[in-house]
Amino acid sequence: MEAIYWNGRELSLDASYPMPKADDRTALVKVHLAGICSTDLQIFKGYTDFQGVPGHEFVGSVVQGPQELMNKRVVGEINFACGRCEYCHRGLDRHCPSRSVMGILGADGAFAEFVSVPVTNLHVVPASVSDEEAVFTEPLAAAFEILEQVQLNPGDEVLVLGDGKLSFLCAQVLRLASANVALVGKHQDKLKLIKRSGVKTMLLGDWKPKQFDVVVEATGSPSGLQLAMGAVRPRGTLVLKTTIAGEHKVSLAPLVINEITVVGSRCGPFTPALDALREKSVSVTPLIEKVYPLSEGVEAIAHAGSPGARKILLQP
Amino acid sequence: MEAIYWNGRELSLDASYPMPKADDRTALVKVHLAGICSTDLQIFKGYTDFQGVPGHEFVGSVVQGPQELMNKRVVGEINFACGRCEYCHRGLDRHCPSRSVMGILGADGAFAEFVSVPVTNLHVVPASVSDEEAVFTEPLAAAFEILEQVQLNPGDEVLVLGDGKLSFLCAQVLRLASANVALVGKHQDKLKLIKRSGVKTMLLGDWKPKQFDVVVEATGSPSGLQLAMGAVRPRGTLVLKTTIAGEHKVSLAPLVINEITVVGSRCGPFTPALDALREKSVSVTPLIEKVYPLSEGVEAIAHAGSPGARKILLQP
Repeated sequence: MEAIYWNGRELSLDASYPMPKADDRTALVKVHLAGICSTDLQIFKGYTDFQGVPGHEFVGSVVQGPQELMNKRVVGEINFACGRCEYCHRGLDRHCPSRSVMGILGADGAFAEFVSVPVTNLHVVPASVSDEEAVFTEPLAAAFEILEQVQLNPGDEVLVLGDGKLSFLCAQVLRLASANVALVGKHQDKLKLIKRSGVKTMLLGDWKPKQFDVVVEATGSPSGLQLAMGAVRPRGTLVLKTTIAGEHKVSLAPLVINEITVVGSRCGPFTPALDALREKSVSVTPLIEKVYPLSEGVEAIAHAGSPGARKILLQP
Repeated sequence: MEAIYWNGRELSLDASYPMPKADDRTALVKVHLAGICSTDLQIFKGYTDFQGVPGHEFVGSVVQGPQELMNKRVVGEINFACGRCEYCHRGLDRHCPSRSVMGILGADGAFAEFVSVPVTNLHVVPASVSDEEAVFTEPLAAAFEILEQVQLNPGDEVLVLGDGKLSFLCAQVLRLASANVALVGKHQDKLKLIKRSGVKTMLLGDWKPKQFDVVVEATGSPSGLQLAMGAVRPRGTLVLKTTIAGEHKVSLAPLVINEITVVGSRCGPFTPALDALREKSVSVTPLIEKVYPLSEGVEAIAHAGSPGARKILLQP
C-alpha cells in the first residue's frame, strides 16, 4: 500500500509499504482522511526517536474486524494500552507504561492507505458528522481533556495563549464551560477566524497583560511558558498543552511564590468530542487549509510546517 | 538597636539601627530567637532586590501593642497584607498583591533586637512550646501548606527530594497524612537525623528511582526539578518548594506527556504548625546546629551558607 515513511532522518513516499495486520483484537481501517498535527512536525525535528508511518489524526472505515464495526466509519484513540497493568485497571489506559502510540511510539500511524487499530480504541462516527469534521476528533478530545482535569467555574476568567489549531479548539471547548474566554495570538487572520466562533481575541502586541484564573499555554513555543506565568493569578491554574523538542530556559520561582498549579494536559476523551461535533457546538472545518492526496504527503507536511499554516489533511 | 543590615550588596552589623515603630495595628516584638532560612541566603545571592533588615523566622515577646498580647510570647506570619483587596477578602491574604513580606519585600525583618509586626499576623505560642521549637513555626507552616493544597490519600506513596531543613519538616508533616513517606538526599549525616523521626531515607547514589504518587521537590537546587519529574507517576503530583535565584534549564515535555500536576507551594498556615509543636507530633530541635549572638550575625549567616549546615539561630 501507499504510505508516508519517516526513517528518523527524512520523510519519503513508499508505494509498496507492507499492509498492516488485523486480528481478533485489531481492526483494519481504510483511511479516508488524516490530519497533520504539530506533534508530527515536532517528531520530524527530533522530539522522539520514532521511525515508521506517522499520523495519529484520522477518520476511516473498518474493512476487517468485528462484525458490528464492518464498514462503519470510525475514529480511533491513539494510545494502544496493554489492558492488564495497574494504570489500565485504574482507567488511566492513556498512561499505560507499556503502551504504543499510533504514529508516535512503536505503532504505525495513519499517513497511509490503511492503518490497524485495537478494536477497543475505535469510536463509530455519527452519520451527521462529516469526514472533514470527524478527522478533528483526536485534537478536539485533547481540548476536552482540560475540562476533565480542571474544575472551571462559570465566572472564571480564562485565557488561551496561542492562535494555532489546538488553541482554536481549546478556546471553543472552554467556552462551553465559561463565558469569559479570551485568546491572545500573533496572527490577525487566525484571530479573525477564532473571533467568528464567539471567542474574544487580542493581538499579542496590543495585549495588556492582566491576571486570569486559568491560562492555557498552547503556543507551541518555548517562550509561551514565561508569558503564561505572567498571566495567571496567584493560586490560579496554568494548563500546559505545548510539547516541544528542546529545553525551556525559565525561572520557575513565580510558580512557587504565587502558588500556581500547573496541569500538564495531553490526550483526551473521544466521547465528548464526538458529541460536540454531532451537536455542532464547536466548529472545526474553518481550520482546514488544504487537502492533499496521500501521494503528495511529503509536500503536504512541508506545507503544514510553514508559518501560519492551518490544518493540512491527507487523502489516500 | 542592634540589627543586621543588607544594603543589596553586603551584610553588616548596625549597632544603632532605628527602632521599628508600633501603632494601633502594629505591635513591637522583642526578638528572642531568629532563624536563618535558605531564602535569606538566596536574597544575598540576588534572588530579590530587598534592602533592609532580613529575617522572617522568629519568636519573641510583645513589648508594645494591644493589652491582650502584652508580654505574650508570639510568632508572626510574614506576609503583611492590605486587608482590603480582593485577595484579602477571599482569604488569600498571603497573596495580597500590595503585601510587604517581613525581611523579604518592603518590611524590615527579625535579625534585630526588635521587629514590628501587624497585630493580625501574630500568634501566641503555647507555654509548652519552647523558644527553640517556636522559632520553627514559620518553616513548619510552609510544610503544612502542602496538606492545604494537595489531597493526600492514606495509601499514597510520597517522596521528599532533598535533605535540607525544609525537607526534614515536609517529610514529618506528610507522614501525619500518609504512612508511605520516603526521603532521598545526599548527606548521610542528615539522613540519619531524619530517619530518627520515622521517615524512610535513601542516599541519592543508592536510590533506584521508582514512581511516586506525590513528590515534593525541596532540594533547593536547580537540578532537583529534573529528578522530581522522573520520580512522579503519570497523573501524579509534584509539589515545588524550591525557589532559587536563576533559571531552570529543563524540558517540561514530561509534564505534558505524563499529565503531571505541579503545585507551587510557599508560606503556610501557622495554626496547625503550632498545634503540631504543642502535641510534639513533629520534632524540630534536632535541626539546630548553633545559636549565635546577634552581634555575630554576619558570621552566623556565612556559617548558614556553608555546605551541609543545619539551622543557625540568632539570639539578640
